[in-house]
Amino acid sequence: MTRSITGDDLVDIARGAAILGTGGGGDPHIGRLLASAALREHGPVRLTPLAELPDDAQVLTVAMVGAPTVMVEKLPSIEQVGLSVATLAEYRGRPVTHIACAEAGGVNSLIPVVAAAQLGLPLVDADGMGRAFPEIQMVLPTLYDIRATPMSVADEKGNRLVVDAVDNHWAERLVRTATVEMGCSTMTSAFAMTGAQARQALVPDTLSLCAELGRLVGQARERHQDPVAAAVARLGGRRLFTGKVVDVLRRTSKGFARGEATLEGLGGDSGARLLIRFQNEHLVAERVAGDGERAEVLASVPDLICTLDSESGEAVTTESLRFGHRVTVIAAPADPRWHSAGGLALAGPRYFGYDIDPVRCPAPEVSA
Amino acid sequence: MTRSITGDDLVDIARGAAILGTGGGGDPHIGRLLASAALREHGPVRLTPLAELPDDAQVLTVAMVGAPTVMVEKLPSIEQVGLSVATLAEYRGRPVTHIACAEAGGVNSLIPVVAAAQLGLPLVDADGMGRAFPEIQMVLPTLYDIRATPMSVADEKGNRLVVDAVDNHWAERLVRTATVEMGCSTMTSAFAMTGAQARQALVPDTLSLCAELGRLVGQARERHQDPVAAAVARLGGRRLFTGKVVDVLRRTSKGFARGEATLEGLGGDSGARLLIRFQNEHLVAERVAGDGERAEVLASVPDLICTLDSESGEAVTTESLRFGHRVTVIAAPADPRWHSAGGLALAGPRYFGYDIDPVRCPAPEVSA
Repeated sequence: MTRSITGDDLVDIARGAAILGTGGGGDPHIGRLLASAALREHGPVRLTPLAELPDDAQVLTVAMVGAPTVMVEKLPSIEQVGLSVATLAEYRGRPVTHIACAEAGGVNSLIPVVAAAQLGLPLVDADGMGRAFPEIQMVLPTLYDIRATPMSVADEKGNRLVVDAVDNHWAERLVRTATVEMGCSTMTSAFAMTGAQARQALVPDTLSLCAELGRLVGQARERHQDPVAAAVARLGGRRLFTGKVVDVLRRTSKGFARGEATLEGLGGDSGARLLIRFQNEHLVAERVAGDGERAEVLASVPDLICTLDSESGEAVTTESLRFGHRVTVIAAPADPRWHSAGGLALAGPRYFGYDIDPVRCPAPEVSA
Repeated sequence: MTRSITGDDLVDIARGAAILGTGGGGDPHIGRLLASAALREHGPVRLTPLAELPDDAQVLTVAMVGAPTVMVEKLPSIEQVGLSVATLAEYRGRPVTHIACAEAGGVNSLIPVVAAAQLGLPLVDADGMGRAFPEIQMVLPTLYDIRATPMSVADEKGNRLVVDAVDNHWAERLVRTATVEMGCSTMTSAFAMTGAQARQALVPDTLSLCAELGRLVGQARERHQDPVAAAVARLGGRRLFTGKVVDVLRRTSKGFARGEATLEGLGGDSGARLLIRFQNEHLVAERVAGDGERAEVLASVPDLICTLDSESGEAVTTESLRFGHRVTVIAAPADPRWHSAGGLALAGPRYFGYDIDPVRCPAPEVSA
């Protein structure tokens, strides 16, 4: 089913994408404002289902790279999006036929909407992860030997560069250092691939899922039902912990927002604590019992760990976690390819420095 | 007069260029080996006098960027040179007709010989400074509003990027951070300009001067004359200090070799000390009298401060200064354009953090 994204869809998409963003992927409010301005100016964006992409389509992903802590102060501009896509298209000397999302997230699901609107191109209903991850090589296309580069990077001052790296890990290193020098947030275009490659490597239906997830959470709230339960049910996930943020340790370092948040349990979790460690996105959630001695990892990458406002069900991003915030932490299963050996090498807990096996999202709650 | 560079010219060019390199510009031994290999494989390189460049020539500069302290361990490769030129030419979509030197220096006068040999292109007998300076924007073309970018950067692993910056200071920032990440030394192509622009902005006859200077120093040595005096005479410079290196403080930081060397006077300079501060190149030479109280800056950027082996007259680069080395420090006048307001803003002592007016090279010694 081919459909379009109009201004009316943006609230739901932004809300759902921020949940899949697992704390990262950028502030959904900023993403919505940018996409809304682009759609007002250029009209609706056609959405192409992944399965309908022609073999010879020329697909590019468009995404913000950097620390979300910086992005809330240094807002991306619509011009930057166009500059990034044009720079890469010119370097490759080939026209682009479709825009795709590199990841799901409040900004990074909506920047591609901006790009597609500006360029009058269709957007693929898919993304490269089915969630958000902090580093460039952490997309399923890497598992299919699709190169991130040539990759364009544009800042808000008009500086731009094209990186052509020997592999996707080098792409991450070179784009990250350029991004830090450019002020810690940049607009990028990358992962040029054919339609045939995209059909194999991307996660299908992500934008539809974002829209549906956002709508379900919103409807539950309107109907005075539990919006968190609605999200858990749609994602086939599980509620991990409900509590109040009592401590946030956050630093912007080497181009990322890194740190950890501590939650004090409420209700059934009273007396326990939950520690969430993050690098742009949530990586590990560890429950510590009341006596402070028994610690248990409840979930870890590559599965999704999402912090939702306990009342509204809105995603709380790592850069906006603050003392006193009442949040419910949920886990949801990642695309199964993330649990392959190659997927875990790219984005499993050990890659991030945690010497544990991945703790997979437990079976869904019966009540959900 | 159009002539050619053959393998026989390389010793003289490398020797002379290293003197003009004012401590930087790379190790002349490495430069000579690279150029020698390229000339053996591809034959002699035609040298085009600056004045004979056609208006519509398409000129590019080719140079190593990075810390010379690293370059002595991580040798540049001939393939890297070709990759850098090809990347920029492809990005610009215009064929290159001539190669030029960005600066004079032991490596950076000879890398363009490598590029010209490989590509079968003539080399312009000129450079962008008439000496070496550490940062990319520090070339006379910047004073003529010629942009450094698009600028290509290639490492020895095969990674490459093209930077397209809003000005030449941003080019420096972005290329420097990429270079640091790529291992602190890279091959670059930049400053694409027409023949008409080159004729206005470059310093003429640099390669001829390097060859002549190198020959004069070599001849003086063979004839048991004073090779340092030969260099001073040819450059219209002046001997500043003769001594022995007693201390070198050197660190590789933010992509540069930075530090200072202390010389203890010998002969007529007995009892005094000379302090030389450098950032890849020598920036300031300060004489401290025996009592340690009276200090006097003898020379500073933008004029040339060169450290020569007192016996052989060979240039001693900042990365090879070491305890016990007997060196003579000479000063020589820079291209007069460096003493304009714009030139001093780019590369005067204040830009480098020394709160002094530039101390110009004193009048030549009568005996010279």
